[in-house]
Amino acid sequence: MSVIKVAILGFGTVGEGFYRTIQSHAEELTAVLGKKVEVAAILIKNKQKKRDISKDVLVTTEFAEILNLPQLDVVVEAIVDKDPTYIFLKKAIERGCHIITANKEMFAHYGEELLELAKKHHVSVGYEATVAGGIPVIQTLRQLLNVNRVQQVQGILNGTSNFILTEMREKKLSFAQALRAAQEKGFAEANPTNDVEGFDAFYKAMILSRLAFGEEPNWHSVERMGITSITSELIHTAERLGLRFKHIASIKKLSHQLKASVKPVLVGNEHPLYHVEGVQNAVNISSDIVGQITLQGPGAGMFPTASAVIEDLVYVCQNRPESQGILSSSETNTAIQEQGQQEETWLIVGLQKNAIDPSIKEIEHVEDETWVAKAKKEEIEELARKHQDLLYFQIIGAFEIEQKPTKIAL
Amino acid sequence: MSVIKVAILGFGTVGEGFYRTIQSHAEELTAVLGKKVEVAAILIKNKQKKRDISKDVLVTTEFAEILNLPQLDVVVEAIVDKDPTYIFLKKAIERGCHIITANKEMFAHYGEELLELAKKHHVSVGYEATVAGGIPVIQTLRQLLNVNRVQQVQGILNGTSNFILTEMREKKLSFAQALRAAQEKGFAEANPTNDVEGFDAFYKAMILSRLAFGEEPNWHSVERMGITSITSELIHTAERLGLRFKHIASIKKLSHQLKASVKPVLVGNEHPLYHVEGVQNAVNISSDIVGQITLQGPGAGMFPTASAVIEDLVYVCQNRPESQGILSSSETNTAIQEQGQQEETWLIVGLQKNAIDPSIKEIEHVEDETWVAKAKKEEIEELARKHQDLLYFQIIGAFEIEQKPTKIAL
Repeated sequence: MSVIKVAILGFGTVGEGFYRTIQSHAEELTAVLGKKVEVAAILIKNKQKKRDISKDVLVTTEFAEILNLPQLDVVVEAIVDKDPTYIFLKKAIERGCHIITANKEMFAHYGEELLELAKKHHVSVGYEATVAGGIPVIQTLRQLLNVNRVQQVQGILNGTSNFILTEMREKKLSFAQALRAAQEKGFAEANPTNDVEGFDAFYKAMILSRLAFGEEPNWHSVERMGITSITSELIHTAERLGLRFKHIASIKKLSHQLKASVKPVLVGNEHPLYHVEGVQNAVNISSDIVGQITLQGPGAGMFPTASAVIEDLVYVCQNRPESQGILSSSETNTAIQEQGQQEETWLIVGLQKNAIDPSIKEIEHVEDETWVAKAKKEEIEELARKHQDLLYFQIIGAFEIEQKPTKIAL
Repeated sequence: MSVIKVAILGFGTVGEGFYRTIQSHAEELTAVLGKKVEVAAILIKNKQKKRDISKDVLVTTEFAEILNLPQLDVVVEAIVDKDPTYIFLKKAIERGCHIITANKEMFAHYGEELLELAKKHHVSVGYEATVAGGIPVIQTLRQLLNVNRVQQVQGILNGTSNFILTEMREKKLSFAQALRAAQEKGFAEANPTNDVEGFDAFYKAMILSRLAFGEEPNWHSVERMGITSITSELIHTAERLGLRFKHIASIKKLSHQLKASVKPVLVGNEHPLYHVEGVQNAVNISSDIVGQITLQGPGAGMFPTASAVIEDLVYVCQNRPESQGILSSSETNTAIQEQGQQEETWLIVGLQKNAIDPSIKEIEHVEDETWVAKAKKEEIEELARKHQDLLYFQIIGAFEIEQKPTKIAL
C-alpha cells in the first residue's frame, strides 16, 4: 500500500494533537484515504525538550532538512508566528506538497498568495483549523457557496473573550478576575492581548471574508474593538435589559463594499448567538437560498483542532480544485441593499437627557445616564465626539430592530 | 460545453424550488460543475394542472418516457410516497444515473438497497434534503466521519412539531389551536399524523443512524411518540421548572447496540436544543475527537430544501465514492459505556406521594401529583404499568443529570 508522508511544523497543542490523533485513528484514515498516513518529520524549536515521538520520525529544528526528504506529500503547519512560517509553506508548495495550516495570523496575512501559488502548482490548501477549531465552518461555507450567495457572516470566533464575558455575567466577576480565571484554566495566554483586544477574531474574520465573499474589506476600515472596556456594571445593565454582551465578528456584503466589524455587541435572546456560552464558538451564515444557518461547537482545544486538521488532510489528499471566491466576488445583486446609512439600535451610557441629540430617538430610559436609542451610526459617532466619556454598543436581535429576515433578499 | 441532463420526479414544493433555483443560479452551477445543467424532463401526476415550465422540458406522467431519454445523468426525486418511487430510482440507477432524493420515508425504507445498488453501478446517491432541509447535516456527518467516531446524534428534526410546541408555550395555545395555526401557515398538512405522531422524525432518525453508525436499530425497538399528548398544563409545569418540551430524535451507540428514541423530552436551558424554536431544526452530534457540535437552521421550505438538493447535485456530479458506514459499523470501542441501565431524570405527572416506589428518588415536588425524580427507565415503566394515568418525560440538560460531557469518552 502506498504511503502519504506528512511533516508537522510545530509540536505545540495543535501539532501534538494532530500527531496523536493520526496514531489513534490510523485505521479510519487508511480506510478513507486508501493509503497509510505516515508522519515523516516534525519541526521543533527546542531540541532539549523531552517529547514522546516515535524514533522513526525525523525531529529537527531545520526546515531545510524536512524539505529535502525524499518523499513529502503534505506539510501541516501549527506554528504561532506568521514569519518565517509563510516562507516554509511557500517552499513546501513549490516542492509540490499540499499544505494545511492552523495559523490564523499567518493565513490572514498570506492566505491569498498561498492559495494562488497552490493553484499554480496544482496542490491544495487546507485551513479549516484557522477558524473556529472543530466546527467545520470552512467546509460548510465551501459547500454552501456551490450555489448560495452569502450575504452576511456573524460569529463568536474567540473562545477566550466569550469565556470571560460569560464568567463576568454568571459569576459577577470583574474583567480582571474573569481573565485570571481564563488564564488558570489555560483558556488565555499570559499575554492575552491577541484575544481580548480582538486581533485573533479579526484574523479569523478576514479568512472567512475571503472565502465567503472572495475578497476582504480594507483592513484599516474594519472596526476592531476588544472586550477590555466591558465592566461588570455594563454587563449588569445589559442583563436587566435581557441582553448579553458577545464579542462578534461580522462581515456583510453591501452593494459596493464589504462592511466588517469585530467588537462587543449587545445581543437579544432571539438571536442565535445569544446562547453561545463559555469557550464555545459559533458562526451564523446568511445566504440567499438556504437562509440562516448556525454552527456551534468547540472553538479550540487539542483534539477539536486536530480533527479539523485531519479533515483537511482528507480534503487535500483528494486534491480538490481551489474554487474560493470565484463565484461571489463578481456578484453584487444579492448584496444587502444599503439605503443610505440605516438606523440601528444602541445602548448609550454616560449621557444626560438634555444632551440627547434630536437625531437620536430614545426607545427606553434604562437608568440615570443610560439609554436604549435608535440612530444611524454616524449620528452616534458625532454624539460621542461631543461627549468624551460616552460609551455605546450596538444591540442586535432585540428591540425589534436589525437582523430582520426581511433585510435578506430571497 | 457539455451538459448535465436532469430529470425531476414530482413538481411540488421541493421539485419546483429546485427547478426555479437551477434557473436563477445557472451561472454559479456552471462555474462549479464546469458543465451546464439542463432539466430534461419532469414527472407529474396531473396533466391538467397549469405549471410554469419551459417548453423545452418533457413534462410527462410516464416515468418510462423519462427513462428512455437519449441522455439522462441525474434523477432528482421529490415525491412524497415511497412506492412506486423506489422502483423509479432503482431503474434510474440501473440505467447509470446518479440519484438525489428528498423523500425521507422512501429513503428510510429503501436507502440501504439503493446505496448498494448505486455502488454496483458506480453512481452516487444524494440525500441531504431528506433530513433537516437546508442544514448540511448529511455532508457534515460525512466529513466528521472521515476520522471521528460518532457516539450520539440528537436532533429536532420535525419543524411542524417544534412550531406547535413553541406556539403552545409562547402564546398559551392548546395543542389543537397551535396545530390549526401551523396548518394556516402551511407548516402542517391537513392530515398532520406524519408530523405530530413522530413518523417523519423517525424516518429522518433512521437515515441519520445509517450514516452515523453504519446501521439502524431494529425499527420496532425504537420508542416513537409524538406530541399529541402534550397539554398546555404540561407545558406550563415545564416552564415553571425552567424546562421546555422539545420533540427529540436521539440515537446513541452503546456497547452492543444502538439505542434510539423519537419522543417529547424536557430540555434544560444549558442544552443546545433548548433554544431551537419555531420551524427551525437542529442536530447535535457528539463524536470522539471533535466533541459536540450543533447545526441549526431552516428544516424545510421551498428554497432551503432546494439548496440541499443542489448541494447534492454538485456532490453526485463529482461522483464521490459511497463510503457510508464503512468506518463506524465495526467500531464499538468508543461507544458510550452502558453500565447496566443508567438512572435518568424524569418529570412524573399523576402520582400521589405514597405511591412513589422506593427505587425512584424524588428530587423535587413540583405540585400536587407532579414530581421531578431520578430513576432507571425500567423502574419508571414498571411504575407506569401500576398507575394507568401516569405520564412521564425524560429531562435532559438540567437538574445536573444526563448529558454530562464526562459520559462522552475522549
